[in-house]
Amino acid sequence: MAVYTDVAADDLADFLKSYEIGDLLSYKGIAEGVENTNFLLHTTRGSFILTLYEKRVASEDLPYFLALMAHLAARGVSCPQPEKTRDGEICGALSGRPAVIINFLEGVWPRRPNAVHCAGVGEALAKMHLAGLDFPQHRANPLSVSGWRPLFDLAAARADEIQPGLRDFIAAELDHLEGRWPRHLPTGVIHADLFPDNVFFIGDTLSGLIDFPFSCNDILAYDVAICLNAWCFEPDHAFNVTKARALLNAYQRGRALSEAEQTALPLLARGAAMRFLLTRLVDVLDVPEGALVKPKDPLEYFRKLRFQQNVASIRDYGVEAAGAVA
Amino acid sequence: MAVYTDVAADDLADFLKSYEIGDLLSYKGIAEGVENTNFLLHTTRGSFILTLYEKRVASEDLPYFLALMAHLAARGVSCPQPEKTRDGEICGALSGRPAVIINFLEGVWPRRPNAVHCAGVGEALAKMHLAGLDFPQHRANPLSVSGWRPLFDLAAARADEIQPGLRDFIAAELDHLEGRWPRHLPTGVIHADLFPDNVFFIGDTLSGLIDFPFSCNDILAYDVAICLNAWCFEPDHAFNVTKARALLNAYQRGRALSEAEQTALPLLARGAAMRFLLTRLVDVLDVPEGALVKPKDPLEYFRKLRFQQNVASIRDYGVEAAGAVA
Repeated sequence: MAVYTDVAADDLADFLKSYEIGDLLSYKGIAEGVENTNFLLHTTRGSFILTLYEKRVASEDLPYFLALMAHLAARGVSCPQPEKTRDGEICGALSGRPAVIINFLEGVWPRRPNAVHCAGVGEALAKMHLAGLDFPQHRANPLSVSGWRPLFDLAAARADEIQPGLRDFIAAELDHLEGRWPRHLPTGVIHADLFPDNVFFIGDTLSGLIDFPFSCNDILAYDVAICLNAWCFEPDHAFNVTKARALLNAYQRGRALSEAEQTALPLLARGAAMRFLLTRLVDVLDVPEGALVKPKDPLEYFRKLRFQQNVASIRDYGVEAAGAVA
Repeated sequence: MAVYTDVAADDLADFLKSYEIGDLLSYKGIAEGVENTNFLLHTTRGSFILTLYEKRVASEDLPYFLALMAHLAARGVSCPQPEKTRDGEICGALSGRPAVIINFLEGVWPRRPNAVHCAGVGEALAKMHLAGLDFPQHRANPLSVSGWRPLFDLAAARADEIQPGLRDFIAAELDHLEGRWPRHLPTGVIHADLFPDNVFFIGDTLSGLIDFPFSCNDILAYDVAICLNAWCFEPDHAFNVTKARALLNAYQRGRALSEAEQTALPLLARGAAMRFLLTRLVDVLDVPEGALVKPKDPLEYFRKLRFQQNVASIRDYGVEAAGAVA
């Protein structure tokens, strides 16, 4: 949420000369992106986002994200598209950091998502999954099931500081998930972080998906499960079946879930809850005193995980399994 | 440098309905304004800045700043202009805070000001001083000479932690300034904080002055002195006479300094250096451990103050006093 790296106006104006996006009119550091420095640029040709990648982002993964955005945008998925330099490059260097310019997507993210928003994200997710099927690059998901135990090892000793009994709870759940994690479901490119703040709307119409640094190749239905957790719980922790139905039905109009995917969805949703419980737990235990950025609450995902443990089938998400394509 | 207050998209869209500035397309929290929360809005009619005023800004002063910006803009000074609601109001409420929308000024602030920039700021400052002469409201400067000793009292006990001997140095200088501070120089509306980050340029052309929360009524030449300190020193602490000459000559083409103002300028510049030395000293001693915002270096202004102590006359700023209007 902070601007880490300032850029001199002269340097930026020079940098822009290698692109065909007009002359610099203004740039503002924007409070988005925990890992990177982002500027909103106005040029004589429009609005753009300039991202400077700080050290924590593995730069070897950058070509994957950038090529993916270009691939998806070319297939009609509304997402930012990297601007190319006159030499055809999509990654330059500015202030000693990898620097990328993408076009600016208008839209606002819904602080209080409703069922219409949930249908929008379901539809867009299916479209993204289909558009990613012929993406030639591959990136394993470092935060899938095999990545969870190392995170737990980091946090286990202090987990009970957050809530008594949390350590044992996670240990038992990890055993459960590792033993049953599905191995033969359809895979492809997933967004892996499609929370409301990464989905833009103008009015009720979805205008775009942003923020692809967690995108990777993994089980497609796992991406759906992440969205169920991120979009369908109320602030009072209640699961909203109307929103879940809207999300799942809209997704399935674009890409029907197979019977195996439908059967696995509750387990995938437990795993999706575990993934965010663990990363938030590690983050909250690692926050320096006096930090301005408030870490996200791991217990929100503890509660979601407990809900998902009690889901018997996809019917509990408000959807009839009858229409499944086996 | 942080976004303190988030605003829900629905609430913002509703808020905008009381204005005639179009429909909301996007808004981004921007990393500007230490005291307030600022968003850059895109609407169907253009770009705007929304400011939510946090508690530290004395809300009784807000009408002064807002009326001043409207007054100056109406007289051709390029500065942001508050947008009025359909009811003619320029201050509303959003997320429980006073909220103001101003038009967005394109331009970038010069990280490495050159003499052309200095001439631009001198010209704009004179124009602002003249345009402010008939501004009917009055606000005393809380950070003028009478405000310095209370700041020193806050910091004196720990001043030598920053540099040995600093406490005695400031005490002696305060005695000097308080005994000699001029009482009969022309006064008017001053910006009082016209640092490079508050002056926008497109190319070499000044496009606007921003950020008026320190504006007040005070000695006009004191504003010139603040600019000399803020614009005419090099990163290696050397005073750049070429820049000072450019700034002062451009100012005087718009508003000639009287002989009394010219004579007082070195003393005013000592005072201007003292003001920023003291506020930075208080800030640096008050920074919570782990804070993400790096406080500005008070010793930069200690060095500038020492330079100004050795200035004999306005000639040391590269300007001939001959052309003075007595």
